Amino acid sequence: MPFDPGSLKYDAAGLIPCVAQDAVSGEVLMLAWMNEGAVRRTLETGKVTYWSRSRGAFWVKGESSGHHQRLVELRLDCDRDCLLALVRQEGPACHTNRRSCFYTAVREGEEVEIMAPVHA
Amino acid sequence: MPFDPGSLKYDAAGLIPCVAQDAVSGEVLMLAWMNEGAVRRTLETGKVTYWSRSRGAFWVKGESSGHHQRLVELRLDCDRDCLLALVRQEGPACHTNRRSCFYTAVREGEEVEIMAPVHA
Repeated sequence: MPFDPGSLKYDAAGLIPCVAQDAVSGEVLMLAWMNEGAVRRTLETGKVTYWSRSRGAFWVKGESSGHHQRLVELRLDCDRDCLLALVRQEGPACHTNRRSCFYTAVREGEEVEIMAPVHA
Repeated sequence: MPFDPGSLKYDAAGLIPCVAQDAVSGEVLMLAWMNEGAVRRTLETGKVTYWSRSRGAFWVKGESSGHHQRLVELRLDCDRDCLLALVRQEGPACHTNRRSCFYTAVREGEEVEIMAPVHA
């Protein structure tokens, strides 16, 4: 069946969450949001493109930071309301310069930082 | 710093997305939603507990299906508006009986099913 980005279930704001996972290591890097246009652009360009809710604009990951995310494969879930992007991530995915945004773990009730910033 | 579930950033509906990842294989299994109470219950019981938006009730994963999700570690992202649960998943995570909800890939413009249902 041909994939139609319009067939996904977007929320009231026209957005769908997308989990970015390192295609090689399996590490979950980040979660961000796409609208239909961002899904189309991601597939057409191979550059993972989100919709920035704060800026109200397309956000080509790495455009300003240089830390590009190249699409390896896009997957959708059973409810068609969430995406999983397998990616090749250059450098850190997180704006704090850490490889993943999920660098804080809850251990015995305490927040523990489990990942240090990468030095480029 | 002690972790306070009240310090997370919930959306207008009081919810935060949570990505469940197999703690051993690294496979991304599903994404569902938690409210503050679900985060607390997950940490207190070790049973991953979501908030069912359709039923408007707590949803202890596996309670009806028997396909429990045991919490290995909860992590939060840099913006405190998304959770990552590393889990020990018994059986399939998906209601379609597939290991993961992300069983559909987009390949050359086509939807391709890349995972078959598990037979218990």
